[in-house]
Amino acid sequence: MSKKVVLAFSGGLDTTYCVKYLSEERGLEVHTAIVQTGGFSDDELKEIEEKAFKLGVASHITLDQTETFYEQCVKYLVYGNALRYNTYPLSVSAERVFQALAIAEYAKKIGADSIAHGSTGAGNDQIRFDMAFKIICPEAEIITPIRDNQLSRQDEIDFLISKGVEGDWEKSMYSINQGLWGTSVGGKETLGSRLSLPEEAYPTQVTETIPKKLSLTFEKGELVGIDGKIYDKPVQAIQELNKIASPYGIGRDIHVGDTIIGIKGRVGFEAAAPVLTIKAHHLLEKHTLTKWQLYWKEQLGNYYGMLTHEGQWIDPVMRNIEKFLEDTQSHVTGEVFVTLFPYRFELEGIESKFDLMNPEFGAYGEMNNAWTGEDARGFATILANQNMIFGKVKEAAEETVSE
Amino acid sequence: MSKKVVLAFSGGLDTTYCVKYLSEERGLEVHTAIVQTGGFSDDELKEIEEKAFKLGVASHITLDQTETFYEQCVKYLVYGNALRYNTYPLSVSAERVFQALAIAEYAKKIGADSIAHGSTGAGNDQIRFDMAFKIICPEAEIITPIRDNQLSRQDEIDFLISKGVEGDWEKSMYSINQGLWGTSVGGKETLGSRLSLPEEAYPTQVTETIPKKLSLTFEKGELVGIDGKIYDKPVQAIQELNKIASPYGIGRDIHVGDTIIGIKGRVGFEAAAPVLTIKAHHLLEKHTLTKWQLYWKEQLGNYYGMLTHEGQWIDPVMRNIEKFLEDTQSHVTGEVFVTLFPYRFELEGIESKFDLMNPEFGAYGEMNNAWTGEDARGFATILANQNMIFGKVKEAAEETVSE
Amino acid sequence: MSKKVVLAFSGGLDTTYCVKYLSEERGLEVHTAIVQTGGFSDDELKEIEEKAFKLGVASHITLDQTETFYEQCVKYLVYGNALRYNTYPLSVSAERVFQALAIAEYAKKIGADSIAHGSTGAGNDQIRFDMAFKIICPEAEIITPIRDNQLSRQDEIDFLISKGVEGDWEKSMYSINQGLWGTSVGGKETLGSRLSLPEEAYPTQVTETIPKKLSLTFEKGELVGIDGKIYDKPVQAIQELNKIASPYGIGRDIHVGDTIIGIKGRVGFEAAAPVLTIKAHHLLEKHTLTKWQLYWKEQLGNYYGMLTHEGQWIDPVMRNIEKFLEDTQSHVTGEVFVTLFPYRFELEGIESKFDLMNPEFGAYGEMNNAWTGEDARGFATILANQNMIFGKVKEAAEETVSE
Amino acid sequence: MSKKVVLAFSGGLDTTYCVKYLSEERGLEVHTAIVQTGGFSDDELKEIEEKAFKLGVASHITLDQTETFYEQCVKYLVYGNALRYNTYPLSVSAERVFQALAIAEYAKKIGADSIAHGSTGAGNDQIRFDMAFKIICPEAEIITPIRDNQLSRQDEIDFLISKGVEGDWEKSMYSINQGLWGTSVGGKETLGSRLSLPEEAYPTQVTETIPKKLSLTFEKGELVGIDGKIYDKPVQAIQELNKIASPYGIGRDIHVGDTIIGIKGRVGFEAAAPVLTIKAHHLLEKHTLTKWQLYWKEQLGNYYGMLTHEGQWIDPVMRNIEKFLEDTQSHVTGEVFVTLFPYRFELEGIESKFDLMNPEFGAYGEMNNAWTGEDARGFATILANQNMIFGKVKEAAEETVSE
Repeated sequence: MSKKVVLAFSGGLDTTYCVKYLSEERGLEVHTAIVQTGGFSDDELKEIEEKAFKLGVASHITLDQTETFYEQCVKYLVYGNALRYNTYPLSVSAERVFQALAIAEYAKKIGADSIAHGSTGAGNDQIRFDMAFKIICPEAEIITPIRDNQLSRQDEIDFLISKGVEGDWEKSMYSINQGLWGTSVGGKETLGSRLSLPEEAYPTQVTETIPKKLSLTFEKGELVGIDGKIYDKPVQAIQELNKIASPYGIGRDIHVGDTIIGIKGRVGFEAAAPVLTIKAHHLLEKHTLTKWQLYWKEQLGNYYGMLTHEGQWIDPVMRNIEKFLEDTQSHVTGEVFVTLFPYRFELEGIESKFDLMNPEFGAYGEMNNAWTGEDARGFATILANQNMIFGKVKEAAEETVSE
Repeated sequence: MSKKVVLAFSGGLDTTYCVKYLSEERGLEVHTAIVQTGGFSDDELKEIEEKAFKLGVASHITLDQTETFYEQCVKYLVYGNALRYNTYPLSVSAERVFQALAIAEYAKKIGADSIAHGSTGAGNDQIRFDMAFKIICPEAEIITPIRDNQLSRQDEIDFLISKGVEGDWEKSMYSINQGLWGTSVGGKETLGSRLSLPEEAYPTQVTETIPKKLSLTFEKGELVGIDGKIYDKPVQAIQELNKIASPYGIGRDIHVGDTIIGIKGRVGFEAAAPVLTIKAHHLLEKHTLTKWQLYWKEQLGNYYGMLTHEGQWIDPVMRNIEKFLEDTQSHVTGEVFVTLFPYRFELEGIESKFDLMNPEFGAYGEMNNAWTGEDARGFATILANQNMIFGKVKEAAEETVSE
Repeated sequence: MSKKVVLAFSGGLDTTYCVKYLSEERGLEVHTAIVQTGGFSDDELKEIEEKAFKLGVASHITLDQTETFYEQCVKYLVYGNALRYNTYPLSVSAERVFQALAIAEYAKKIGADSIAHGSTGAGNDQIRFDMAFKIICPEAEIITPIRDNQLSRQDEIDFLISKGVEGDWEKSMYSINQGLWGTSVGGKETLGSRLSLPEEAYPTQVTETIPKKLSLTFEKGELVGIDGKIYDKPVQAIQELNKIASPYGIGRDIHVGDTIIGIKGRVGFEAAAPVLTIKAHHLLEKHTLTKWQLYWKEQLGNYYGMLTHEGQWIDPVMRNIEKFLEDTQSHVTGEVFVTLFPYRFELEGIESKFDLMNPEFGAYGEMNNAWTGEDARGFATILANQNMIFGKVKEAAEETVSE
Repeated sequence: MSKKVVLAFSGGLDTTYCVKYLSEERGLEVHTAIVQTGGFSDDELKEIEEKAFKLGVASHITLDQTETFYEQCVKYLVYGNALRYNTYPLSVSAERVFQALAIAEYAKKIGADSIAHGSTGAGNDQIRFDMAFKIICPEAEIITPIRDNQLSRQDEIDFLISKGVEGDWEKSMYSINQGLWGTSVGGKETLGSRLSLPEEAYPTQVTETIPKKLSLTFEKGELVGIDGKIYDKPVQAIQELNKIASPYGIGRDIHVGDTIIGIKGRVGFEAAAPVLTIKAHHLLEKHTLTKWQLYWKEQLGNYYGMLTHEGQWIDPVMRNIEKFLEDTQSHVTGEVFVTLFPYRFELEGIESKFDLMNPEFGAYGEMNNAWTGEDARGFATILANQNMIFGKVKEAAEETVSE
């Protein structure tokens, strides 16, 4: 009996090559799997499945992880306002980790001897796949035909033709990666440092021009409603928000960052719902959390984002951080009012019963009952103490020296 | 001989009241001082001086601290990409601290017995003034007539009329505070949480509608040129950039934050040059600094901003952080390309000889000479080690328990 | 009917003065309360109660908070290995906060109009009391006779004699403060920077000279057993450990730190159980937690300690941090082996089913199955990437300049 | 002409094997180098040189890096009070990095085609060597015969005998590694988690039993004198302190930590001077630095230690951190008084003209002139503001819900 391999399959050139290579050159029983994290339509998934069977795989499965992805990761990215280098909502980074984990769990479940992915040796994804595979099913061999054999696209196409596989393998100018938490766009301009992406590179074109006011409802840190309509699940609210805001060209930008392998990388993205959700959520937090909550959330949220990006989402510290983040959200409930414009949005304001900016207890710049001017004077006096002493000690020490 | 008091004087109702109160009610010799940190025109300063003398002060001085403010603070805010709560370039916060310090140094220099400011007991400024005074000239008494006497505007006006001082004391709807590093706008909507400022509340109206491309030249982290023109001093470049970008309505937003006295505060601002400079600077850093430099700069830059905001700029840790920040800037040299649009801008890309995104040494997603697929595999294997072991140990421990 | 005041009462000179002052000078109905956090014997508490009634208080209550103090604070100090400035287990700091909170809750419960403490204006305790009172029962007036009236000891004694109160008010050379989490010793030498405390200043004298081996059992981060005996409650284990280890003079040191009011303070302490527990706990964690768990625990544990010390234990961020810390402890279970010697102890080693130092999965310095030398080489190559590129870019840039 | 290889040579079995393997099996021209970082006597270095020439190397060099190691690294470890996991002064970690860098620079200088080390595939040192080589001379091939060929000791001995090389290759029970910044001791007990090292495992035996008082003089953070004697260089003071304190058995412990390759490792060490220096230095800092300086020094010092440990000392962020640390030391000048006892020491106190614990400006627990009780009350009131508001908002919100 031939040995089982599970292959992460997308239907593209690389993974099509892998099916044929693994089955015909390596003699393995190929089980393909694709992970849905919100980026594929049903039609696309069906088409991919058909491709797989046409290539002669032993089995094919679609692993729907959209809810899991939201519940185990996206939710915390929102709680943590995670924007890598203040820009990138970790669209592909986070998604890929969950795809890798789902593939690894599946391989473990069906008792695969090996597990394969079609990544090259020059990007982040290979590391995310390898790490998830090593950690979840350490006994399985990891096979990476494209990386190992350093194949060019033409090499792959020639091999497939020799195996009787036909297809339209023309390379698109931009590599697009769509998911629940945003769509990445890479190619041409993003290969250098100088240029931004042209309008036409973005999958969603800007068709809305009339400003639109929206209210976003948050319940304990989660986006649950839009314009008063409450959704069954936050995933639906996110998807709906994406539909509304994407045609405004909102949430587009280019992320320049550090790849896991130490080189700099640049990638465009459009992520209307993620960016809107995080910015609105952060505003609500500024009203409802204390200064030290905001401070530590920033530290831990950023680290959570960094480790997710780097494929270390599985480290137990991430579970610990999630507990912290979740606990900070008990008061992050209320409405955030937003106006959408072409290519931008404005946060108007918020309403929340947990709003700490409550004029009843002291308003900025206005007199109040909670404290007196004398209290403020005392506060400043004591707060100045250490530096006042520092200044005097320094002065005295310098006099000693100059004597 | 009557005792000397130095009063921070702006020519407004509160400090006009203070002059009369200090001289006539307290019998002090009043020396007024105003600190220029880039927000006043020469005409305004002259007018304020005339007002002071008309009120009968013993002396009046304009302390020009614009260069000092830039060299000792703004420069580091740029190095540190300091945006409070990811939004506010600390426009007034930083400026007020420098005004307070200059007043305190002046009081020390002329041997004042006391030192006065016109702040109320409900804002940040009183704390900044008090702390600077306490630290720089701890022996001087601090007099704060408005805060101490809890006066209403009408009380002050009545008192001034009784002293024969006339003036147009009508309160403007918005309180505007202009400086090198941005203009704050407070009032009406910012007193609550729900509404944003209307168009007309902003001092600079949007008059430019045609997109404009700009190149910003940075030299070791400082903005030194625009569109190829190199300025003698970064302050000039900032002022020029403000002139170009303000009519686009760029850099407007509302900051919601924690005041020093523990309440939440909300303030609008327009800060075209600060926001553009920081965002362009940050992009250049993403290309030229290592991951750990970016990481630690973020921690220290944010803390630097927070302590500046809270009037603790004088703490020696701030000098230490400045040394850190300055040392990170040796490679932050190059051009950043920006396009201005009404109400927004896009960062296009950068050019720098220090750009680490150098395809010669390994390009994202492309094969290269610096490492092999085998290296990447080894890297992922080792990086997965701890969590692989954690998983196995956990599994073994759980088996023990369930046996 | 006269108004009710709740007074934090210890039976010492200051609070005895307060009883008489509040009742006879201010005409208030005085309700005294003392909080047990593990430092008083039953006899001492009874004696204090008798003193109170003899002074004519309207009521007196002993609030036993030992369990609460452990469950809501000490537990997390252990989880977080909290030693202020790497030295001080926050013995008095933490305890005082809980006393203040209990008094405040009690005042709220009985509907007191005011609430009083006997602290002076120069220490940390006044701030901890004031803050707890302000936050828990903001409407009550805070009365602080000693601080307000700047009384000397002799002033107080004279007043008490005039009221017919007798007592032995001789000041002891050292001020001792005992509690569950350690005993502080202040006075004479600790008022300066140069000298350590003499042997006789410590309440517990060193009587044990023969080394003693102990095993400490931890269950999810809590000390639950000693030498195989499991206690009903961790509080008992801590108290027992204190009995065993204190006669060795273990856990003595002097803490030099920053008071809440900005001056430096120095205080001696003996804290055998706290220091042993934290050090043993930390060792167990080094074996059972991942690197990033250890890293973030250190950050958050230290901050938790700092905010506790500064009377900000009540900030909601502390609850969030507690959730984090608690979640890190799921694997911190096992035995730690310790040897006690006079004035010191050695940590011998640990046993835990969660020990990540499991030779089965790769031993330090030994060959293994989990990875190959080739993997390690790949790991180092990739990890060197960014700095290799940095070096090349720098070299190339410098060549450009020098040309 | 045969190609040049530079080999890091210690004269032990592994590197002796490497010489023969590289020259006779690989046909390379072998240039051996050994780096002095304070751990070798002149005799030992001479002996190693003789061994090298006897093995037929083309050249041998001793690179003395003791001063460089101190100036570029140890100094900052002291400034940063760097103790890994609060225990380990990074004795071997730091030293090995400097040895690797010196070898790499030497290889670059003499134009070597390749560069070799004798580490196995299971420890930290291989990573430190590989990374330094890759970064400093990326074009050179890295050859690691022991790691690549997975040789056992017997394999190596057999090979050497076949080449006519004789030697006493008996393995000592403990592997000892001596340097300026401490001596590590690994083997037997440290391979497991349960046992500590026996007395005889430590190279320095405890021969001093009479307590000894010492004063340590620091000048801007550097140890410059002992008992009033000022040394030309801090390295000499460290070496002298080691001579005095090592016979007391001070600075011994076992470090349990995370290796760079993700497994846990355990190593004993004796490091009298490093531990004494750091602890004394830290005490002096507690007296002379502000709270925020101490806070940030702890963060950055620990990270500096971690990155040094992990072979990333060369990252530019480390230069930035050094600037920060250095700048914090301007006031860390004074005497620290220490008493040595067998196996332990006590820090008695300090004297410094920069001591912020200056009773002139406010003493802990005593009344003073710098502030009043009223100021302290005001301070506490304002500091309580946010949590008071939080409490009220929460209460009001909960009432809304329950209605």
